[in-house]
Amino acid sequence: MEHLRQKIHEIIFEAETPAGKAFDIALIAAVVLSITCVILESVASISAEYGAILYGLEWFFTILFTIEYGLRIFSIKKPSRYIFSFFGIIDLLSIIPTFMSIFLPGAQSLMAIRAFRLLRVFRVLKLTRYTQASQLLATAMKESRAKIAVFLLTVVNVIIIFGTVMYFIEGKENGFTSIPVSIYWAIVTMTTVGFGDIVPLTPLGQFISAVLMIFGYGIIAVPTGIVSAELAQAAKKTQFTRVCTHCSKEGHASEARFCDHCGEDL
Amino acid sequence: MEHLRQKIHEIIFEAETPAGKAFDIALIAAVVLSITCVILESVASISAEYGAILYGLEWFFTILFTIEYGLRIFSIKKPSRYIFSFFGIIDLLSIIPTFMSIFLPGAQSLMAIRAFRLLRVFRVLKLTRYTQASQLLATAMKESRAKIAVFLLTVVNVIIIFGTVMYFIEGKENGFTSIPVSIYWAIVTMTTVGFGDIVPLTPLGQFISAVLMIFGYGIIAVPTGIVSAELAQAAKKTQFTRVCTHCSKEGHASEARFCDHCGEDL
Amino acid sequence: MEHLRQKIHEIIFEAETPAGKAFDIALIAAVVLSITCVILESVASISAEYGAILYGLEWFFTILFTIEYGLRIFSIKKPSRYIFSFFGIIDLLSIIPTFMSIFLPGAQSLMAIRAFRLLRVFRVLKLTRYTQASQLLATAMKESRAKIAVFLLTVVNVIIIFGTVMYFIEGKENGFTSIPVSIYWAIVTMTTVGFGDIVPLTPLGQFISAVLMIFGYGIIAVPTGIVSAELAQAAKKTQFTRVCTHCSKEGHASEARFCDHCGEDL
Amino acid sequence: MEHLRQKIHEIIFEAETPAGKAFDIALIAAVVLSITCVILESVASISAEYGAILYGLEWFFTILFTIEYGLRIFSIKKPSRYIFSFFGIIDLLSIIPTFMSIFLPGAQSLMAIRAFRLLRVFRVLKLTRYTQASQLLATAMKESRAKIAVFLLTVVNVIIIFGTVMYFIEGKENGFTSIPVSIYWAIVTMTTVGFGDIVPLTPLGQFISAVLMIFGYGIIAVPTGIVSAELAQAAKKTQFTRVCTHCSKEGHASEARFCDHCGEDL
Repeated sequence: MEHLRQKIHEIIFEAETPAGKAFDIALIAAVVLSITCVILESVASISAEYGAILYGLEWFFTILFTIEYGLRIFSIKKPSRYIFSFFGIIDLLSIIPTFMSIFLPGAQSLMAIRAFRLLRVFRVLKLTRYTQASQLLATAMKESRAKIAVFLLTVVNVIIIFGTVMYFIEGKENGFTSIPVSIYWAIVTMTTVGFGDIVPLTPLGQFISAVLMIFGYGIIAVPTGIVSAELAQAAKKTQFTRVCTHCSKEGHASEARFCDHCGEDL
Repeated sequence: MEHLRQKIHEIIFEAETPAGKAFDIALIAAVVLSITCVILESVASISAEYGAILYGLEWFFTILFTIEYGLRIFSIKKPSRYIFSFFGIIDLLSIIPTFMSIFLPGAQSLMAIRAFRLLRVFRVLKLTRYTQASQLLATAMKESRAKIAVFLLTVVNVIIIFGTVMYFIEGKENGFTSIPVSIYWAIVTMTTVGFGDIVPLTPLGQFISAVLMIFGYGIIAVPTGIVSAELAQAAKKTQFTRVCTHCSKEGHASEARFCDHCGEDL
Repeated sequence: MEHLRQKIHEIIFEAETPAGKAFDIALIAAVVLSITCVILESVASISAEYGAILYGLEWFFTILFTIEYGLRIFSIKKPSRYIFSFFGIIDLLSIIPTFMSIFLPGAQSLMAIRAFRLLRVFRVLKLTRYTQASQLLATAMKESRAKIAVFLLTVVNVIIIFGTVMYFIEGKENGFTSIPVSIYWAIVTMTTVGFGDIVPLTPLGQFISAVLMIFGYGIIAVPTGIVSAELAQAAKKTQFTRVCTHCSKEGHASEARFCDHCGEDL
Repeated sequence: MEHLRQKIHEIIFEAETPAGKAFDIALIAAVVLSITCVILESVASISAEYGAILYGLEWFFTILFTIEYGLRIFSIKKPSRYIFSFFGIIDLLSIIPTFMSIFLPGAQSLMAIRAFRLLRVFRVLKLTRYTQASQLLATAMKESRAKIAVFLLTVVNVIIIFGTVMYFIEGKENGFTSIPVSIYWAIVTMTTVGFGDIVPLTPLGQFISAVLMIFGYGIIAVPTGIVSAELAQAAKKTQFTRVCTHCSKEGHASEARFCDHCGEDL
């Protein structure tokens, strides 16, 4: 029993053994196929012709993921640690909507939750050297979180202030029906998306919009600069790691064999 | 009296004492809640049902901020220095519109000024290590202000020239009703917002637009590059941390053997 | 015969001799002119007047490129290596559609393939020092491919999840007719293009759109930061140019006193 | 005579003397005011009321600029060198349209040329330390011109190929009336402007658009990375300039007084 549990754990949670790798690849294939079914089902012409097959496949994948979910809980020592982890919740959300659809036939919008199934693909990152890359990115983000927080606070303030001001200037008759709608417009404008469903019509509104656009256009330099500087920093730290034991000169490349300052063996 | 003044100053203007921290948190909560009321009031369905409550809350927050404004003037040694400071003006603008609404019932657009109330949230930056981050960003901006000025001068010139040229090419019949409107269109286009409310219709106008778009798309690299380089520079300065024990000159590289200021051994 | 083959190879495939350079310039001129013909032919007014001339020119260039294609196969030692190379396939695609138009008169859309003819212009890069620049860019891309893969995986996931969720929230009546269309909308929105042909109309849909826009607006910092850091790295490697006279190990810093590979004095 | 010529040259072309500085400031004021007149004249309501005054001002500034142009030619030793310089051509273009309007009353679109008058503002850069900043930016651009050329060649190819392909896929009935129009659409889309005046309607067209958008969204990282790396490089070169005469250790900060390697006086 304990042996079986360990074996399953090795296959499902780890990726060192051939069986573990094969499981991961099969899992990703199942996730991608299952999402493809969800997407195809939404196309009217395909749904009309292959609706029954897609319905069958949906249940096939749901049962597959349910078995997997059960095995994960069975094979881990502390099930609660898995259940309340990020991937644990995602795994549960992947299977619930289909079961719910039996009891709540009208709750169509619940089916949207199945999209989160896709997040399970990120398990692939444990497989390879992509972990290093994603850790580097995560570290760069983490290191610069104070700067990013200041930036975000500024952006949120600008959006709310411009949204509110535009509501009073343009008014309901020009499409700015409420402050939440105006804030939505300010986000559309500042991020340079510019749908054009709501546009300023008064000269003053157009002037204020122009200021917001230039702000949004220019301010993007700040997070970009932060991340660039941080990644350059992170790259430097990873590279220069060897110190000469003789003269304490730092910063030798990993392939260096002698200290470039005192000539000692490294 | 003097003691009370100092005590109030400590609570309102500083954040070192528990009471000061509590005040700051309460202030931010009040600001956020008051803005939420302004936003909700603008939604027709909410305003119809809870209009009276929101009106009451508006006055509650206005009186609260008025008391706070009075205490700030009372507790500071040189009131004029606070009154004409950035935050002093913001604090005053936060309360004036509500009082004005009694005397000028028609001046709806004045109410927009209340949005600036939100800027008071930036006081939070004094609370924490975010000061350091915002200072770093501010320094990076300051250091590169000559470069940014040259960039902005170029952008303003491009916008005005393209706006004027497009007015004469497209003309009033294609929506470019005046040069100010054409300049607004040029800003919408160069910042890559692209509402689509005004679009070039003549082949020559479309060609010139294409040039403006590519210019706007590519030139964003310049401010981004400036800020990136400046932040990398700023980060480097922070890193070099060896200090001379003789003359206290900071900023020596880790491999330096002598102080570059007084020549002492490091 | 063998001599002729070598001579042709020198002219067509290399750029060191004057004849080779002249051939390359003539080839680029022919490609650009031939594309210009394709473009002009599509303009109704030009096609009506000069249709016959453009048709003649199309055949002239096609025959020219066919002869060139034949000479390339003739002059190279291993024809299969050229035929299945990137440029070999492009060269074939450049001539096929025109010949096909005789046998399949209705297959208008095949003519689009002629556009790929333009890719032949990239042969110009072999001519000059642009090789170095393009290699530097290619290296920077290659070095950061793990990070870019993680970034792309995230972006693809976000697009599919937001597209699916928006389909269930907005529904067919608001223009989100199927999940593929919703995903198209999510791409239009996240890349900040924002055509405005499909826009969210429900408050919840607008809120989710706002999140997607801010995500798309901010996340661009990541690839930019990656490329910036990588190019800075690449530039640095090019700079460090001291070579050990003993073991020929390159890349020593200018302040290095000993070779970090063999320990000799520099 | 020669003395007068030198005096005028000093005032008009240089900025070291008080008179020269005053002239530059007056010139910029005149340029800005004259452009403001051009802009105001285009607004129907203003033109109706103040048309006569604006017409008078236009001639006042034109005569002023004509006198200045004459003085520039008079005061310089080699007039041809000035006349065919960038600013010489701009200066001439600033005055010609107004004179032309007498002889060619119908040539309204000629008036657009007056907008180039604004470029004269760039003379201000000679006045100040902005020269340094603009030179740094210019150097960064120049250094990376090979990389930028490769990038631009790629972008131009992508735009033409996608434009051509979309013309054949979407066709005239969906608004892609000719390849030039399709290329215009491709530029609007790739630069993430997205007016929405022309949008793909077929599923295949939407898929190809999505690819173009993601390409345009991601590829912006390349010029940004190039400029960032180049500016970081340029900043480094400017900073680290002092070399120790004793031990040849490079890279001392400009304020350093002793070599940080051997301790000698710098």
